[in-house]
Amino acid sequence: MKGAARPHVSAPAPRGRGIKTPRQLMSEAIALSSRGLKNGRGGPFGAVVAKDGKIVGRGHNRVLADHDPTAHAEVVALRDAGRRLKRFHLDGCILYTSCEPCPMCLAAAYWARVDAIVFANARADAAAIGFGDAFLYDELKRPPRLRAMPMRRLLAKEAKAAFRAWAAWDRKTHYGPKA
Amino acid sequence: MKGAARPHVSAPAPRGRGIKTPRQLMSEAIALSSRGLKNGRGGPFGAVVAKDGKIVGRGHNRVLADHDPTAHAEVVALRDAGRRLKRFHLDGCILYTSCEPCPMCLAAAYWARVDAIVFANARADAAAIGFGDAFLYDELKRPPRLRAMPMRRLLAKEAKAAFRAWAAWDRKTHYGPKA
Repeated sequence: MKGAARPHVSAPAPRGRGIKTPRQLMSEAIALSSRGLKNGRGGPFGAVVAKDGKIVGRGHNRVLADHDPTAHAEVVALRDAGRRLKRFHLDGCILYTSCEPCPMCLAAAYWARVDAIVFANARADAAAIGFGDAFLYDELKRPPRLRAMPMRRLLAKEAKAAFRAWAAWDRKTHYGPKA
Repeated sequence: MKGAARPHVSAPAPRGRGIKTPRQLMSEAIALSSRGLKNGRGGPFGAVVAKDGKIVGRGHNRVLADHDPTAHAEVVALRDAGRRLKRFHLDGCILYTSCEPCPMCLAAAYWARVDAIVFANARADAAAIGFGDAFLYDELKRPPRLRAMPMRRLLAKEAKAAFRAWAAWDRKTHYGPKA
């Protein structure tokens, strides 16, 4: 996909009953970003997941209200879409988010296999109001020994059994990013 | 912390009733990795969050069972710990995971402010049984225009209002990684 046409982002939106344009979908994500903030549930971030111009998942940041450090708008919206569509791969869906995703949310979008991400505010805007997204992008680029987060390895041999069982299991369901 | 002593990882475990050693905590994470796999709930991954040697959160991968692309063991365990401790910052906690975290889970650990991460299997082991963690680490290093995930910007101006409201709000609760 690198350098090639990006049909899912640039194609015109489908038309019809209940079908929203990309601008309408983003407006909904932005509305969610204000709603969560006003209710004190979390930071000023909202997101929707859309399939064929229809909203199939929505969320705003709920970190504070839910005591959930992972409850970023994008994660909440992806989880909502998976639950509603009853699938863990969201092929054919687009993630609209009121701000460029942090590394957690970007990686979540890959695991979810959404076709594309559309965002409004950028990571520099988030940094300007005190959010650590840019710091995290820098950290993730570093080799583990140079990160601020201490990491060490333990019981490597003992952990192999579950991996071997997965590798040997014929009828397993694969999941993961399109590589 | 870079290059300095890493007290939370290298300090001896606390001793006392119900207090587990790091090896016991990792054994529990490894046991969870097998349990989730046997029940067909997801991939072969388990994690626990520990505070002062006591387990305060636990999880195994539930991507398949919950139709939740974000339900990696670490995310499930961090959410569980936040819910149980009723806080969104897990300072003083250590994340034990049966495999080196993917970028989503690593970033989640930063947002959660855990003191350290202890892991058993490494990302190369995960790659060997078909998981895309190494691919994701490469993708996140790239500038957005060179990623496999198409991204574009829309309604940047309209999204600013919520950010301005957050910046102007005196009594907000800050959250995020220790930068």
